[in-house]
Amino acid sequence: MMGTVLYGPRDVRFETVADPKIVKPTDAIIRMAASCVCGSDLWPYRGAQPVKRPTPMGHEYCGIVEEIGSAVKTVKKGQFVIGSFFASDNTCPHCRHGYQTSCQNAESVGGAQSPLLRVPLADGTLVGTPEMPGAEMIPSLLAISDVLGTGWFAADAACVRPGKTVAVVGDGAVGLLAVLSARQMGAERIIAMSRHEPRQRLALEYGATDIVTERGDAGAERILELTDGVGADSTMECVGTQESMWQAIQSTRPGGYVSYVGVPHGVSLDGAELFYTHVRLHGGPAPVRRYLPTLIDLVWKGEINPGKVFDLEVPLEKVAEAYRAMDERRAIKALLRT
Amino acid sequence: MMGTVLYGPRDVRFETVADPKIVKPTDAIIRMAASCVCGSDLWPYRGAQPVKRPTPMGHEYCGIVEEIGSAVKTVKKGQFVIGSFFASDNTCPHCRHGYQTSCQNAESVGGAQSPLLRVPLADGTLVGTPEMPGAEMIPSLLAISDVLGTGWFAADAACVRPGKTVAVVGDGAVGLLAVLSARQMGAERIIAMSRHEPRQRLALEYGATDIVTERGDAGAERILELTDGVGADSTMECVGTQESMWQAIQSTRPGGYVSYVGVPHGVSLDGAELFYTHVRLHGGPAPVRRYLPTLIDLVWKGEINPGKVFDLEVPLEKVAEAYRAMDERRAIKALLRT
Repeated sequence: MMGTVLYGPRDVRFETVADPKIVKPTDAIIRMAASCVCGSDLWPYRGAQPVKRPTPMGHEYCGIVEEIGSAVKTVKKGQFVIGSFFASDNTCPHCRHGYQTSCQNAESVGGAQSPLLRVPLADGTLVGTPEMPGAEMIPSLLAISDVLGTGWFAADAACVRPGKTVAVVGDGAVGLLAVLSARQMGAERIIAMSRHEPRQRLALEYGATDIVTERGDAGAERILELTDGVGADSTMECVGTQESMWQAIQSTRPGGYVSYVGVPHGVSLDGAELFYTHVRLHGGPAPVRRYLPTLIDLVWKGEINPGKVFDLEVPLEKVAEAYRAMDERRAIKALLRT
Repeated sequence: MMGTVLYGPRDVRFETVADPKIVKPTDAIIRMAASCVCGSDLWPYRGAQPVKRPTPMGHEYCGIVEEIGSAVKTVKKGQFVIGSFFASDNTCPHCRHGYQTSCQNAESVGGAQSPLLRVPLADGTLVGTPEMPGAEMIPSLLAISDVLGTGWFAADAACVRPGKTVAVVGDGAVGLLAVLSARQMGAERIIAMSRHEPRQRLALEYGATDIVTERGDAGAERILELTDGVGADSTMECVGTQESMWQAIQSTRPGGYVSYVGVPHGVSLDGAELFYTHVRLHGGPAPVRRYLPTLIDLVWKGEINPGKVFDLEVPLEKVAEAYRAMDERRAIKALLRT
């Protein structure tokens, strides 16, 4: 088949790759309904993370089960399923605590920017939809696989509750879906930090009540002004840089919650400084698996429309253009039609 | 009066100082029932923190109200009261959220290693006992003022709950009282990390179920062994060094809680490393004021005996010996008879 491979900075190719095969009896092969490019794909694409060897790209997926290994019990051939970027057994102690991305048997999933994908630990990893979805639902189901699951974890890890004041640092797809998640969890005031007009618009549509365009210390200062000098109850950090992390911490009241869900790049926290902020910190790779049943249900009932973060759609063979558009911030997130 | 003043590393003097006076109408003056030396006093005593000018020492106190300012309403002359190391108004938004050590009008309290002490914001800061306590109760009431309040915050911030497995890093007075606090909060298994026999004994008396003598990576490894490779649900870091902080983080399961209550000295956390541990982090200067009513009640009823951490008692004028004994680890914590 043809698939997407990253060779080095800004060198992404669509080329012939081996068809995925059942390697272990717990594997499944999925035929992709659609795939997409992730904000985290841009780190190696931009050279901010080394590319040691040609790397099959893509870890967001939904589609129809094409084949299952001999030990797969609950996932059925022909079923429409969604999984996340880490395969997990969903039975180990860490999974039972809801941290499937720290599963004791976790395996990463890669190569989803292609028509077929091998998913390890299929029974633990994949969750089916109630029925075969219509085409119009595919973008939202695909969003669940990573960006919505991650935005939802951001809100959950930041303990968003009804009536609370929350702030979101970052206006990428994850930040925008953190806004949507906070609204679903009942936050009363949602301050989105964004300086890009199309993203501000989507943030407002998803439930933001205020927009702050300042960044860094000035951004945190503005949040304090908007909250009578108190700070947000919860702040969701959806970028992963030193500046965005401190912006989030400084925007939060003592005893408030800061979640961080983007892999930190070059972030270092001084213990004593953190100590005196009195914030609670929680983050990590989002355990999307924990939220799949809830999120599939919300999309299925039409209560949320996370698929709107896809503001560019290209055929899979034009994947290089999708990377370019996101790199140049011409697109929030690009969907790849398979 | 005579009071305790630190001039520089290992140069603590008991000398004539000015009697404290009512400065603001919200102040009170307390006649100390007893005072003590804090683990945190050892940082400047050891030269690990600069002493810029001669500094009146001591911030742990309980005693009888000698005088009140004209605006003091609830605190009465002649009443026995306990306060903590930060004065707080107990009415600002941060106080109402339970973070009185981040009070918008916080003032630090200093000079408690002396017979008299000025306490600002008396109504917000001081809590009275039901009646005049007997002499035998003074050590436990004094412990509430800082070490027990801090150990209790460690357990609360680490979300200790009935049935949970918890670990305590640090066998100073705070660590030992974190063990006591975890037991009070219903933890089922309490692993105390200590290599000092007398401290191990007190830890066991306070409710520890296991003792781990290894430190650093080896200590964390041992906790994993003791918990079937899972890690503790909650770990309380009661030291404040880089080694103890990572020991605590590595001892904790994904999604578990790490609290840190000692002022971090030279601690730096790498964002990406922290991210993949999946732990929740919360700490800061313990908001002891939040817990004063609860802790006074527990001591009053005789349900806890935190005063046992005082294994040395000296008259106030021998304060220099108290510092030496703690510095040399001959004493866990020294009580000063005033």
